[in-house]
Amino acid sequence: MDLLWLAPVGSLLALGFAGYLTWKILKEDEGTDEMKKISAAIRKGADTYLKRQYRVIAMFLGLLFVVLLGLSFIGALNPYVPFAFLTGGFFSALAGYIGMWIATRANVRTTHAASKSLNSGLRVAFSSGAVMGLAVVGLGLLDLSIWYYLLTALVAPGPEKISIITATMLTFGMGASSVALFARVGGGIYTKAADVGADLVGKVEAGIPEDDPRNPAVIADNVGDNVGDVAGMGADLYESYVGSIVATMALGTAAFGALGLAIEALTIPLVMATVGVIASILGTFLVRAKEDASQHTLLWALRKGIFFSAILIAIASAAIVWITLGEAYMGVYFAVLAGLLAGIIIGLSTEYFTSHKYSPTVKVAKQSHTGPATIIISGLATGMQSTLIPVVTVAAAIVAAYYLAGNGDPAMGLYGVGISAVGMLSTLGITLATDAYGPVADNAGGIAEMSKQDPEVRRRTDALDSLGNTTAATGKGFAIGSAALTAMALIAAYQEELAHVAANMGREVSLNLSLTNPLVIVGLFIGGMLPFFFSSLTMNAVGRAAGGIVKEVRRQFKEITGLMEGEAEPDYASCVAISTKAAQKEMILPAAVAIVTPLAVGILLGPSAVIALLAGALVTGFVMAVFMANAGGAWDNAKKYIEEGNLEGKGSSNHKAAVVGDTVGDPFKDTSGPSLNILIKLMSMVSIVFVGLVILIHGV
Amino acid sequence: MDLLWLAPVGSLLALGFAGYLTWKILKEDEGTDEMKKISAAIRKGADTYLKRQYRVIAMFLGLLFVVLLGLSFIGALNPYVPFAFLTGGFFSALAGYIGMWIATRANVRTTHAASKSLNSGLRVAFSSGAVMGLAVVGLGLLDLSIWYYLLTALVAPGPEKISIITATMLTFGMGASSVALFARVGGGIYTKAADVGADLVGKVEAGIPEDDPRNPAVIADNVGDNVGDVAGMGADLYESYVGSIVATMALGTAAFGALGLAIEALTIPLVMATVGVIASILGTFLVRAKEDASQHTLLWALRKGIFFSAILIAIASAAIVWITLGEAYMGVYFAVLAGLLAGIIIGLSTEYFTSHKYSPTVKVAKQSHTGPATIIISGLATGMQSTLIPVVTVAAAIVAAYYLAGNGDPAMGLYGVGISAVGMLSTLGITLATDAYGPVADNAGGIAEMSKQDPEVRRRTDALDSLGNTTAATGKGFAIGSAALTAMALIAAYQEELAHVAANMGREVSLNLSLTNPLVIVGLFIGGMLPFFFSSLTMNAVGRAAGGIVKEVRRQFKEITGLMEGEAEPDYASCVAISTKAAQKEMILPAAVAIVTPLAVGILLGPSAVIALLAGALVTGFVMAVFMANAGGAWDNAKKYIEEGNLEGKGSSNHKAAVVGDTVGDPFKDTSGPSLNILIKLMSMVSIVFVGLVILIHGV
Repeated sequence: MDLLWLAPVGSLLALGFAGYLTWKILKEDEGTDEMKKISAAIRKGADTYLKRQYRVIAMFLGLLFVVLLGLSFIGALNPYVPFAFLTGGFFSALAGYIGMWIATRANVRTTHAASKSLNSGLRVAFSSGAVMGLAVVGLGLLDLSIWYYLLTALVAPGPEKISIITATMLTFGMGASSVALFARVGGGIYTKAADVGADLVGKVEAGIPEDDPRNPAVIADNVGDNVGDVAGMGADLYESYVGSIVATMALGTAAFGALGLAIEALTIPLVMATVGVIASILGTFLVRAKEDASQHTLLWALRKGIFFSAILIAIASAAIVWITLGEAYMGVYFAVLAGLLAGIIIGLSTEYFTSHKYSPTVKVAKQSHTGPATIIISGLATGMQSTLIPVVTVAAAIVAAYYLAGNGDPAMGLYGVGISAVGMLSTLGITLATDAYGPVADNAGGIAEMSKQDPEVRRRTDALDSLGNTTAATGKGFAIGSAALTAMALIAAYQEELAHVAANMGREVSLNLSLTNPLVIVGLFIGGMLPFFFSSLTMNAVGRAAGGIVKEVRRQFKEITGLMEGEAEPDYASCVAISTKAAQKEMILPAAVAIVTPLAVGILLGPSAVIALLAGALVTGFVMAVFMANAGGAWDNAKKYIEEGNLEGKGSSNHKAAVVGDTVGDPFKDTSGPSLNILIKLMSMVSIVFVGLVILIHGV
Repeated sequence: MDLLWLAPVGSLLALGFAGYLTWKILKEDEGTDEMKKISAAIRKGADTYLKRQYRVIAMFLGLLFVVLLGLSFIGALNPYVPFAFLTGGFFSALAGYIGMWIATRANVRTTHAASKSLNSGLRVAFSSGAVMGLAVVGLGLLDLSIWYYLLTALVAPGPEKISIITATMLTFGMGASSVALFARVGGGIYTKAADVGADLVGKVEAGIPEDDPRNPAVIADNVGDNVGDVAGMGADLYESYVGSIVATMALGTAAFGALGLAIEALTIPLVMATVGVIASILGTFLVRAKEDASQHTLLWALRKGIFFSAILIAIASAAIVWITLGEAYMGVYFAVLAGLLAGIIIGLSTEYFTSHKYSPTVKVAKQSHTGPATIIISGLATGMQSTLIPVVTVAAAIVAAYYLAGNGDPAMGLYGVGISAVGMLSTLGITLATDAYGPVADNAGGIAEMSKQDPEVRRRTDALDSLGNTTAATGKGFAIGSAALTAMALIAAYQEELAHVAANMGREVSLNLSLTNPLVIVGLFIGGMLPFFFSSLTMNAVGRAAGGIVKEVRRQFKEITGLMEGEAEPDYASCVAISTKAAQKEMILPAAVAIVTPLAVGILLGPSAVIALLAGALVTGFVMAVFMANAGGAWDNAKKYIEEGNLEGKGSSNHKAAVVGDTVGDPFKDTSGPSLNILIKLMSMVSIVFVGLVILIHGV
């Protein structure tokens, strides 16, 4: 039965529901003039940033488009690839833009809604997150559907037709990847430079509270939440989503082609994604809270939506596999379950290690008794320790998916790994909603503080914000886990592509992937080192950019008379401009490293070394991303634990020590850590796109 | 020409010269009664610690001996293995003990000699280091020679004789490894618990200087230098030294056996080691300094010795390869050069990133302007950045050695990798001397401070100590680089052993080392995660143990009246006892992880997963060890840079921020980082020893 038509339908459903939610959000009141003014400033800063960033990205995409066009003229690529690349980049950027557009409009409306009730505030903020989540999956399915039907019409019929289609679609992941990298790295640098800079001078030196309107960097800080945590996250997960689906399509064509089941195999990920859309939309209706809701009940309100969607998908997937591939291949269904389950386990593990409801973060907080050094050591150790469960879980999911779906056949096993990534990501619509909800709630709290709202409103926005910290941490765990599975599928797809393109070019490439091949060892070493080197670049970039903000804030405190007394206004725009400029400049080098390394290794050492490079980067990048995200989360919540009145509370020397931990954790969890997700995927994508070049040099 | 008799001669030369240097050191005067008293306290603390540690180790060795005996009864091991295992452990422990024995006698004599002249102080401290360096290589060669001749006499003649001999010798590396792990981990926990605890209460809370006799933890701190940096380092490098030689012997037998050149191939590493002994002894005579020597001249005095030895070995190795294997195999010689060169490059790179003569460390120091958080971020970033050069260097050395020595033949290529590790380690006698010199100089400074010596004496011991920090950092780089190459050779040797033992057992084991095998991927993931998890254990252990010291020091400050006024003496022994007990307890779990993981993976997932596990752990462990050692070194020297009067100098808020960095760096560079070297080697060794068990389960 042909179910492929479900994909465009799912796309339109997602985009339609996102439009409906947008309309509902915009209907809400923006509150007082003061609130409108602050919100407008944040919106303007975010717009300015994104415009400048997208200009850089456009230049970059244009440049690569020309390169790809050149390569397709000499026959190293098929002629559709350059265009597929462009649309991937365009849709990824659009997904990030939509998320940011709605977040900068929902923030102030959340503040105002929170003045009515907790549930009203939650609904507005969560709806904003849902717009982003559904836009990501909707645009992803749209891009996939358009290209699939377009290529089906354009490519000349023949036995190779389907594999040409999937190969082309695979390559548009690179466009999405590069935009995601710029968005994550640039946004991450922006947000943390503003945050760290604002804290260092405002909180630590001047002793004014967070989000105080006298702090010149406060608007930049709030802008940062939107450009880093919303737009960056959106582009990142767009890429994982699309990447996992196209990789699985390619692997499915290779595994089931000979059995005449290629169409069926590539239908499954697309239809599962559609079911995920429907499940996510239904799940959003479950998210609501009572006025006296505790932190725990609020979290459960969000969780309910996710669990409901996951169960729905688990049930529907069984039917999908049954209908398309038939009873003989139900192992594929168990691969889906492995991915879904792994996503949930990683989320729970992340929560355990980063929430102050559990002992690890409380232990970190208690180390504040002996000062900042011990809290740093303890946070680093907690982050390192937290890598065990996610790594074992992903490893187990890979093995389970491979053997359950493969049943002895390697190609089908790899298809199983891909489909487990799709399974994990099928709940993306709603998972991303709970994640993108966080920055909106954070902004809402900032606006409440700056516009001096009633304490009751602050209490409510604080409750929403605090919840956002937990969902942000679990969201990061999910992003990392899915990136690892997607990268694994992409590495497998690279090998398919290599064989496929080499055959088309009439050349042969010999692969020796044994660990006894020194080129493999070298690839593993360089790949294993790269996440460290890459993180050093992004962390230093945050340090430099934050230094610029520190100087500017100090200057304004000194030069603007009456600022500290609240009689004069700071120059918010200058801090926004400094962060924007620094982020644009600093994101170039890390991006170049991510793109040039796989190219250089491919050209110099050949395809075996490339695969080892990707495997090495995947392993270390995955472990390191978990380490950095969870260490950062633990420090953040250890600080919050103290601010809630534990261990002598706010203002104590314990609190000061915890602030140091939190500041170190900022670039960990919001810049370097999340960028690693994209590093490992982008490197695979670059390798796939330029595989023809490697064959030209190393093929015989 | 049979040159094998050179090995026992080299061993006796090394031990004889070490004895001569010991005699010379003991002839020196111990100085005033006050100095003798302090030195006796340190010596007693170190002795107590080592005795307790060796009791734990003896129990562990005994237990494993029984297990191995059992395995050899059921035929999974040859009957010599359990005994080889015991002697490996015994000699490794002995090497550490000798190093500590002389260091705790040379420290006070260095202080006294420094009252005469800078050169006298340098000579005593360096001689103590040389005793340790030569004891390590002398005992290593002794153990190797005894077993080689013993097995030659005992093993029944036949075509398999040589490979049985090398296989047995290979397994005694595991004894050395386990002792090294206990020594590094236990010693590392001890030294940093005492150091961090002493600093946190003494320097930060009470505001008294380092090494102040009023600090109850000051003796424990000085004891720590000896048990961690001397005994631990000695056992570690004993293990690398022996491990690289036996692995190369096994690889040589496999590569050259069919050519009838097995004896020649296994002679080379032994004879190169002997030449290394002679070169090291000659090199020690070059180490001397003028009274007005600058830091730079002093460093050059030490370097001269190393460079001279390296050049001597480079020349002699050409002759050795020529004489044994002949002109056709001169590629083996180039593999030696690759290893030697890689060692030097890694040393220089380490110095660049950790010395405050160069910009990276100065940049870290400058981040102190914005407080502890930025100095932490900057140090972490510097450490991560510093991984690039060592990783690329080792990768290049592996490829160069493989292709130069192998010339297309994989077995010979792997022999080349082994021989390059031997090349790097051939200068160990003198490299370790410059390294083990550091803690002696550090102790000498402490004794000078505590016994209130003339400022001129302090100036000299400070100059010696400061030099020791640089050599300690480069020494760590050398230890890490050589561990990586050795581990690589051990992984190759594992495969040889697997084939060899399987053949002996009449079974067949199929290996699938391709990166497309999910078991390989799982092995890589778990191996890649393990160094993170292991480091979290050791860092938390330091945190817990330091917490105990902090409490005790605070108690003494509060309860002992007249202590701060210098009228009453603190209870040094109680801090020593607390550190000792904590270290013994805390070293068990990390050691268990290192031993159990390869066993569990082997039993559950089979040999392909084991090799991937080892490769994953090697890659991440190597990168992480460099990261941790260099971040720690950069923080340490950033603090020293400020203490030398830069950036507002000692006591400023900048200095306080730098102290936080240094405290975080302590467990990084002296506990977790160095322990990783052993983790990666020990896991390989455990896998090799228990290969029979894996074959029993997974062979057919």
